[in-house]
Amino acid sequence: MNASAGRPIDREAPPEAAAASSLIALAEEPNGPSKVAVLGAGSWGTTFAKVLADAARDAGAERTVHLWGRNPESMERIRETGRNERYVPDIHLPNQIHFSSDLRDTLSGARLVVAAIPAQSLRAQLAAVAELIDPDAVVLSLAKGLESATGLRMTEVIAQALAEHTESSHDDWARRSCVLSGPNLAMEIAREEPTASVVAAPELTTAAWVARCCAAPYFRPYTNTDVTGTEIGGLVKNVIALCVGICDGRGYGDNSKASVMTRGLAETTRLALALGGDLTTLSGLSGMGDLVATCSSSLSRNHTAGKLLGSGLSIAQVQDAMTQTAEAIRSAPAVLALAQEHDVEMPITEAVVGVLRGDIPVDQLAPKLLGRDLKSEGNSA
Amino acid sequence: MNASAGRPIDREAPPEAAAASSLIALAEEPNGPSKVAVLGAGSWGTTFAKVLADAARDAGAERTVHLWGRNPESMERIRETGRNERYVPDIHLPNQIHFSSDLRDTLSGARLVVAAIPAQSLRAQLAAVAELIDPDAVVLSLAKGLESATGLRMTEVIAQALAEHTESSHDDWARRSCVLSGPNLAMEIAREEPTASVVAAPELTTAAWVARCCAAPYFRPYTNTDVTGTEIGGLVKNVIALCVGICDGRGYGDNSKASVMTRGLAETTRLALALGGDLTTLSGLSGMGDLVATCSSSLSRNHTAGKLLGSGLSIAQVQDAMTQTAEAIRSAPAVLALAQEHDVEMPITEAVVGVLRGDIPVDQLAPKLLGRDLKSEGNSA
Repeated sequence: MNASAGRPIDREAPPEAAAASSLIALAEEPNGPSKVAVLGAGSWGTTFAKVLADAARDAGAERTVHLWGRNPESMERIRETGRNERYVPDIHLPNQIHFSSDLRDTLSGARLVVAAIPAQSLRAQLAAVAELIDPDAVVLSLAKGLESATGLRMTEVIAQALAEHTESSHDDWARRSCVLSGPNLAMEIAREEPTASVVAAPELTTAAWVARCCAAPYFRPYTNTDVTGTEIGGLVKNVIALCVGICDGRGYGDNSKASVMTRGLAETTRLALALGGDLTTLSGLSGMGDLVATCSSSLSRNHTAGKLLGSGLSIAQVQDAMTQTAEAIRSAPAVLALAQEHDVEMPITEAVVGVLRGDIPVDQLAPKLLGRDLKSEGNSA
Repeated sequence: MNASAGRPIDREAPPEAAAASSLIALAEEPNGPSKVAVLGAGSWGTTFAKVLADAARDAGAERTVHLWGRNPESMERIRETGRNERYVPDIHLPNQIHFSSDLRDTLSGARLVVAAIPAQSLRAQLAAVAELIDPDAVVLSLAKGLESATGLRMTEVIAQALAEHTESSHDDWARRSCVLSGPNLAMEIAREEPTASVVAAPELTTAAWVARCCAAPYFRPYTNTDVTGTEIGGLVKNVIALCVGICDGRGYGDNSKASVMTRGLAETTRLALALGGDLTTLSGLSGMGDLVATCSSSLSRNHTAGKLLGSGLSIAQVQDAMTQTAEAIRSAPAVLALAQEHDVEMPITEAVVGVLRGDIPVDQLAPKLLGRDLKSEGNSA
């Protein structure tokens, strides 16, 4: 950790030179890095460690994948059994994965660091391990959400937290912070069902390098440079899925749910465009694709949380009933605040926040959303 | 029917005057027409007759809805029981609906004629009744498909067939031909579950007039003037639903299906844009909304047909197993031909046509669609 703590210290080299050296380093490793670290052994982190290991085997690349989890007993059990029964039941994990609760051992020499950590804990976790991260590492976010205290996206949190606690600059970390997002229900990927995804990085070279690292026979990563659009699609969809879950819990059918998804993607797109994202990203796998998969699936935590709310449980009861976090409960107010700051209308997000705050009874949600005056669709989207 | 058959005869008045007189006539009926005719007593026609009757009651308007079906015994049974048990089981139909198998009785004086007739029979049906249709009537299509012999959309078929067999011109009928489309699974609407839809007409006044006719407490029609985009969204989605059904039948999960829906909407949008449609229509209720509802539902015929194909049945077996037409089986080759004519790439439609022709085994469909080379998403959509 940087001893002069608190303020980032810029590298000597100007940003262009740093970027160039980083690109050269990636080009020197056509098969990807020999060591990858995954922080977080929940369902997505564990599954993605398997994807990385299977990808290396498929490419004939020498690679060890180090999966870190907080709890030493749990990690020991996973090592012994080759399975993470709590989060990825019935799936045998490949031998190339090293399971550990030791951060130094996990991170040392890893050129790709994957952050599979809940949105609200990401900053503190990274601050604690920043000095262990390779100064040239690329950091890939699997987390979806806005930090509620700051309203920042996950790649923004990564760059800020690492710049604050290492000698590399904010710009340098921002250039090497990227995100993976798409219609990616973890259990389906763990079962090796064919899945496509998107890696977004500020530079296409970085995105392509990460994509090659995780391209497995059952997992197809596409690339783009729209980090903002990709992250906004992935995080707002949790709010929309919560709303669709509430509709499900109230017994509404596919017509209503499809309307909420359609108008939900429209408001997500408005927000992404206001923040500089691209329309094509939101119409693609990490926008519409992720939204549709999440809203269709009983495997989604946010969809499930909404369903429980819709069936009449309180928020406290929903949180008690679930083993994993429904991120939208934390992110929704931050999404609404961000939208208001940019003058973007998001009626579905606003209604979900109203339900979460107890201002709108769940049985009023769907009538409120579906019962607007007749008007021209273009003007009302 | 026009005795000089074969060629349309233009009205004396120039098109502008005809349009103006048509608008004035609509404006004189703020509550909509006192008589509406629905041709076709299948699930959607019957359900929409109920919507029209409920809409009139809700608006306090005097209106009779005449529902025509081909089979006198069936219509007699529906009249006696107030139910259409074959197509809309367990739903009591409102008293304002007159059930008939007499076309003259149904159509005489109806200012709104709703065509709920399968795509491939529409032209012949209209030719047979053209002389009975009020010369000032607005014709609303509920049919989804392309006429396989001509590649024409349903509103194009309506204008062509009526111009050929009446004294009004093609332009005049085209101006009064409109379409209703959206996430509209008929059984859910029959159960009065909240549903939104889109009415598209060449002029917004016409669309708004039709929308007012069918705005019921549980049914919200929005309006636009993009007839082409609305029809293309509604018809290609059947092809995509067939493909998603095949994925379902093969046991693929929500990740794969969401990817097919996303790329399916992308290719639908490309076709619509090439034909002059608008992006916002395809991102809206009649584009994405209809696609998602159809692909999510076990109530969709095209989705069901795909599922049966995916589980290993032949096309002949699928057709035997179903009581109603899966339109996509007929429309898919016409969609592909239209796309090729306009140089639009539609890989999913092409693969579905390959399966229907027997050129691609069903178990090769998903790998073919999901297994393309890694690339930038924007370039490959």
